[in-house]
Amino acid sequence: MPQNTQPIIVLVRPQMGRNIGSSIRAMVNCGLTHLRLVSPRDGWPDQDASDLSSGGMDHMTEIEVFDTLEDALADCHYVLGTTARQRDMVKDIYTARSAAEKIKSIVAEGQKTALLFGPERTGLLNDDLAHCHGVITIPLNQDFSSLNLAQAVLLVAYEWSQVRDDDNIKSHEYLTGDSEPATQKQVQEFLERLMMEIDDGNFFRNPDVRPHMERNITNLFTRARATDQEIKTLHGIVSALIGRKKAKSKA
Amino acid sequence: MPQNTQPIIVLVRPQMGRNIGSSIRAMVNCGLTHLRLVSPRDGWPDQDASDLSSGGMDHMTEIEVFDTLEDALADCHYVLGTTARQRDMVKDIYTARSAAEKIKSIVAEGQKTALLFGPERTGLLNDDLAHCHGVITIPLNQDFSSLNLAQAVLLVAYEWSQVRDDDNIKSHEYLTGDSEPATQKQVQEFLERLMMEIDDGNFFRNPDVRPHMERNITNLFTRARATDQEIKTLHGIVSALIGRKKAKSKA
Repeated sequence: MPQNTQPIIVLVRPQMGRNIGSSIRAMVNCGLTHLRLVSPRDGWPDQDASDLSSGGMDHMTEIEVFDTLEDALADCHYVLGTTARQRDMVKDIYTARSAAEKIKSIVAEGQKTALLFGPERTGLLNDDLAHCHGVITIPLNQDFSSLNLAQAVLLVAYEWSQVRDDDNIKSHEYLTGDSEPATQKQVQEFLERLMMEIDDGNFFRNPDVRPHMERNITNLFTRARATDQEIKTLHGIVSALIGRKKAKSKA
Repeated sequence: MPQNTQPIIVLVRPQMGRNIGSSIRAMVNCGLTHLRLVSPRDGWPDQDASDLSSGGMDHMTEIEVFDTLEDALADCHYVLGTTARQRDMVKDIYTARSAAEKIKSIVAEGQKTALLFGPERTGLLNDDLAHCHGVITIPLNQDFSSLNLAQAVLLVAYEWSQVRDDDNIKSHEYLTGDSEPATQKQVQEFLERLMMEIDDGNFFRNPDVRPHMERNITNLFTRARATDQEIKTLHGIVSALIGRKKAKSKA
């Protein structure tokens, strides 16, 4: 994938290798493979990072290390920084979701974009945010909004992945394995048989409420959205029950 | 918050206390405070869980422990189970996002809902999923989709929080700190002054392209969406530059 088709994740002065590794795992989960590290505290490479990436490191296209944020952003066109709290700065503020839409529109213009995440303890400093065109503040529980680094990366990367793929993601499917959904005809035939059999068993004692009861039964089996296989199973169950009743009445 | 207004998170046979703790942190981040644990491997309470919750434990309304999934779900009306891979079962399949919409609609009916997450190693078994009305499969990188437990909880809980609060979340704001956005009049006055001053400095040597250049400058300063304070600053900059030029021309 050409570099400009996805935002670069920039971890600014990250403190713990394990958090870098978990961030990499989250990135790859969401199809992001370009990482820049600005002055990681414990240097680079970092064994903790490799371990915590759970194999994600092998999927990365590029991991680059820079001494300064300015260097890391030098070739970028558009930059958003993440922050948990509002700052007294003049900035566009995005949610993770609206940021993803914004990044998508800018990536579509062929521009190189970057998403910044600050150190674990402090987050991005105002000096870091000054390099950003806007900020991302993820709307969370205001009484308990602190995310760890990898979780912040995950939410922002996830929103990106949902926007990037939104033409391909089916928001809702109905999975039936190897069998086919039953046709209404199959369901109806089963219901007719069922009604007949239970009527035969004196189920509908009060004729006044029979239509009401039939409707409830129909509704129940329709709502179940059975497959053709399951309709056969239901028939089998009815047959078995009839046979048992007959066997019993003979005994 | 009454219990039925939020889904219950159910961790089924979780293995590591630290993952329970991180899941609790993620839940509270997203305003979810009802947790049920089914047969946690290392028992309960668990010091690792407390530590990794980063204080989230204190925000929980209820943490209950059950021996079996059946017991944990006994009072629930609607249950979705998370799974990374498709199963050969007859189920509604939701994304994390569409699941949140579904849960919201069911919560609105006053029904008690539950979201299930399986053990770290295996995920939910088909026997567990049989108790679910549908499954949630988070659309991620198909080559690398395995999330750790807390990250799966985070994404599902996050989507819930976004749907729950969607009337209150502003997807985009423009933050200007203590100052006010400049009026167009303020910007225009500054631009007129600027044009005059640069014209005075012989900026527009070719009168043919002057309209074009003026338009570009206007566009640039307009796009900056300055505050009133910043317009003052710009005036100050111009004044300072003029003063310097004048001082220089005297020299």
